[in-house]
Amino acid sequence: MANELYQYSIISALMDGVATGGVALSTLQERGTYGLGTFENIEGEMVMIDGAVHHLRADGSVEQATSTTKLPFAMVTRFEPTARRKTSLPDKDRIIKVGKELFPNSNNCYLALHVEATFKEMTVRAVRSQTYKGQPLSELGSTQSVHTYKDARGTVFGFQSPPFSSGISVAGGHLHFLSADRDRGGHVLALQADEAVLSGASIRMVHIELPESSEFNDAKLDLDQEGIRKIEG
Amino acid sequence: MANELYQYSIISALMDGVATGGVALSTLQERGTYGLGTFENIEGEMVMIDGAVHHLRADGSVEQATSTTKLPFAMVTRFEPTARRKTSLPDKDRIIKVGKELFPNSNNCYLALHVEATFKEMTVRAVRSQTYKGQPLSELGSTQSVHTYKDARGTVFGFQSPPFSSGISVAGGHLHFLSADRDRGGHVLALQADEAVLSGASIRMVHIELPESSEFNDAKLDLDQEGIRKIEG
Repeated sequence: MANELYQYSIISALMDGVATGGVALSTLQERGTYGLGTFENIEGEMVMIDGAVHHLRADGSVEQATSTTKLPFAMVTRFEPTARRKTSLPDKDRIIKVGKELFPNSNNCYLALHVEATFKEMTVRAVRSQTYKGQPLSELGSTQSVHTYKDARGTVFGFQSPPFSSGISVAGGHLHFLSADRDRGGHVLALQADEAVLSGASIRMVHIELPESSEFNDAKLDLDQEGIRKIEG
Repeated sequence: MANELYQYSIISALMDGVATGGVALSTLQERGTYGLGTFENIEGEMVMIDGAVHHLRADGSVEQATSTTKLPFAMVTRFEPTARRKTSLPDKDRIIKVGKELFPNSNNCYLALHVEATFKEMTVRAVRSQTYKGQPLSELGSTQSVHTYKDARGTVFGFQSPPFSSGISVAGGHLHFLSADRDRGGHVLALQADEAVLSGASIRMVHIELPESSEFNDAKLDLDQEGIRKIEG
């Protein structure tokens, strides 16, 4: 069904470094058309745009993921926007603010948010990869690669997750970027656009699949809100 | 599919007193065969056993709910136990402990737990009802009715929810009771049985539906872990 969320694993597990194996890319493509996530060993960022899954690597390269790829964390939806607005975007937070204005009856729901623009400035990061099995995501911030692009045309897609989802999803906004020519992208740290088209949908059905691995089973999964905000906020 | 969890609303909303309207009983019956929850205005306790939805009232009476009934909070599953053990139950906590022993690879999953026994002692409570719209569940503890039954034959059903579900589900054990003659029951506070048959299943697929009401939209949903433990633990 349109605008339902399918999420594989939980953000606390990724924080704990649970990143071996995961959901098959083909399963994600059955469950959604737009979404985000990461790859095995937390190697780079994933963004799904119109059914195609893109692997955004720390070296700045982008390639389409193959159908055998596994993802240890992902959130996807069959995105069918139900509201749209032209807006300027002085900063990233404005996307969440406009999203909330478009869906005033969805305070305590998830939102799927989509932005098309030529961004005057777009700063993205990509996590480099775990250097050992189980390395926590919080340790990967220091080695992540950050790129800033000027006049970058492309698409931002992501989710606003409600506060009560903390530990499961990334409470607050979580956005990934892919350029129109599909050769740049990453997890959005900052952006700016004079004119953007923001569209979105409210999400009331949430499907969460928990991993079956011993790695997930053994994880402590202590809630590290500050850590999640720092690396994913 | 068997042993998937369908949950309507979140426990934080119930704590905040969001209890007008809810999911139709017929929807719950499509999604599960066993489960628990509460009724509009938090009037009593719900337990679903083998597809039948029972309304356990504070006055001690039990009746089958009608198909037009709405439930502001419920958790159900198509329960097909995959493990079983005969055990004594010196206390309620033993159910959770045995459940975890039966499913050692499900530390971070939900468990559905089912117990058949003649309970030497069974202490249950039923919440009386909100006295005004939006009354928080935490205020209803003082007026709840508590009954203790001796040699009560019947069924306990409920869920063990993982710590990270806190605020969404009731983290830890949450069990309801229905007597074999279907005329007594409630939310389990304490129990004891010399010989019980415990069966269960591990749950890795969780479907959460968020209410569309303005009451849910306006709720603050601050996480009150201590409050949830006090009233639902």
